[in-house]
Amino acid sequence: MIPDKNEILASVERISPFIHNTPVLTSASINRITGIQIYFKCENFQRMGAFKMRGAVNAILKLSDEEKAKGVVTHSSGNFAQAVALAARSTGTNAYIVMPTNAPKVKKAAVLEYGAEVIVCPPTIEDREAAAAKIVKEKGATFVHPSNDLDVIVGQGTSAFELIQAHSDLDYIFVPVGGGGLLGGTALSAHYFSPETEVVAGEPFGADDAYHSLKEGKIIPSINPKTIADGLRTSLGDKNFPIILQFVKEIIRVEETEIVDAMKMIWQRMKIIIEPSSAVAMAAVIREKGRFKNKKVGIILSGGNVDVENLPF
Amino acid sequence: MIPDKNEILASVERISPFIHNTPVLTSASINRITGIQIYFKCENFQRMGAFKMRGAVNAILKLSDEEKAKGVVTHSSGNFAQAVALAARSTGTNAYIVMPTNAPKVKKAAVLEYGAEVIVCPPTIEDREAAAAKIVKEKGATFVHPSNDLDVIVGQGTSAFELIQAHSDLDYIFVPVGGGGLLGGTALSAHYFSPETEVVAGEPFGADDAYHSLKEGKIIPSINPKTIADGLRTSLGDKNFPIILQFVKEIIRVEETEIVDAMKMIWQRMKIIIEPSSAVAMAAVIREKGRFKNKKVGIILSGGNVDVENLPF
Repeated sequence: MIPDKNEILASVERISPFIHNTPVLTSASINRITGIQIYFKCENFQRMGAFKMRGAVNAILKLSDEEKAKGVVTHSSGNFAQAVALAARSTGTNAYIVMPTNAPKVKKAAVLEYGAEVIVCPPTIEDREAAAAKIVKEKGATFVHPSNDLDVIVGQGTSAFELIQAHSDLDYIFVPVGGGGLLGGTALSAHYFSPETEVVAGEPFGADDAYHSLKEGKIIPSINPKTIADGLRTSLGDKNFPIILQFVKEIIRVEETEIVDAMKMIWQRMKIIIEPSSAVAMAAVIREKGRFKNKKVGIILSGGNVDVENLPF
Repeated sequence: MIPDKNEILASVERISPFIHNTPVLTSASINRITGIQIYFKCENFQRMGAFKMRGAVNAILKLSDEEKAKGVVTHSSGNFAQAVALAARSTGTNAYIVMPTNAPKVKKAAVLEYGAEVIVCPPTIEDREAAAAKIVKEKGATFVHPSNDLDVIVGQGTSAFELIQAHSDLDYIFVPVGGGGLLGGTALSAHYFSPETEVVAGEPFGADDAYHSLKEGKIIPSINPKTIADGLRTSLGDKNFPIILQFVKEIIRVEETEIVDAMKMIWQRMKIIIEPSSAVAMAAVIREKGRFKNKKVGIILSGGNVDVENLPF
């Protein structure tokens, strides 16, 4: 069930015409402040502004021509909606995006700008799933889950693959964990291509299902998660959890104020825009910075889609 | 009086160990929206967050050992204060920075963080100049003007030099104009190294002394300038004006709302942080975008030092 090395390599090859090999940035002042050598993999500069483009493209390109002709459907109010919309347009497929009535206008506008069809539904999981199932039935479209899908997971792992290609001697790679797609894919890439590198996740205390799931050895979903890191309110699934259980040893939880402080530090020192979910990985490094002193730490800055008119500072 | 080609080349060589050769970024979506091929030279990623580092380093490195031993002094409440402070520390010199009592706390803190001595004075030009003159007299320190100094102008021109090295076929280079150091230096670099490239400045209507000076052929200082682009409230000087008069044909003025819109577009589309002064050049391109359709346009994003807790949107 766990994707092998060749699946990652094939995915890197497959998606490369449709995504950016994003830059890895460093900051002398952040290294000085933290005492850590940090390498920031900038998925905020990815197409549509987040790593999710990788998994969406990979999943769509793995479809048969017949499947592609019928389109893809997903439900998301966040980055995966935009990712599937742009990935579908880029690869010549139709996308149907189920979005809740309370999704931010700016997100809906972005999805429409990428040429997808938006289906609005009431803001419950049940309604979302029913609306998506209806599209699958009526249009014959293929459902693509934002994080609990092996092709999506493998696609997300290509970011860590590129980071490892650029910096082969990292002691750690930190990523945020929400639905588990990025964490699962990162863990696979590190396992196959840099086995000495330990993968650690950052997670908000207010949405710490992955922390408890890893501790208990079984999926314990979030109940009513509350965090500013809107991309991390989802829970792990049966496809990514076995990978995380096998290859990830540690999840560091962080407070909301630590997330905002880390976000602000990166904005101010690096002059780049990251979203709160991205700052969670940085906040985890800072929270335990004594342990990582003088280590080489990669951090995947997962995305940069924030509403600049509504910031937490 | 006008610096020659070799002075630019010598400056590039001289300052290179102390500055970043900043990246040139492009944005597919901004190119699509504007219909222009834009190349953004990212001085917001420069050390201390702005192009001013270049001129400060160049001016300090041109001092004799005896002069260096006595230190440098400038008056500024903006980026040049930080630039001289960091340039002095990087090159082993002392810096005395005269700042007005109403300078933002965050700016003063940054200057102190770079190890400079801050001298606080009342917020008038006369008080600033008197305070700086006192340091020159008492300490024997050399005064470095933020923009009206040929070594500073030549140093600022190295950004355009790098941009031209990376993209030799630009039709235009846009920069913001405030005190005139960046515009003067950019005009020199284009003249010597890419004579087909036209240099155009963007300037706020609320601080349009350069526009009127160029039109009248003599320096007409700003009276009570009002603009969000805080770096552009200063006026041209007798060292940079002759260069601008000789090599710059056009200054495009922009409204305050156009500055904020351009700033927001770059933040949202490129996920990078630029300050309002930097957005003025972009706003000028957008204001007249029909004229530049399908042209190759370089824009120097002059800096990224904003107070993220106090944004115009």
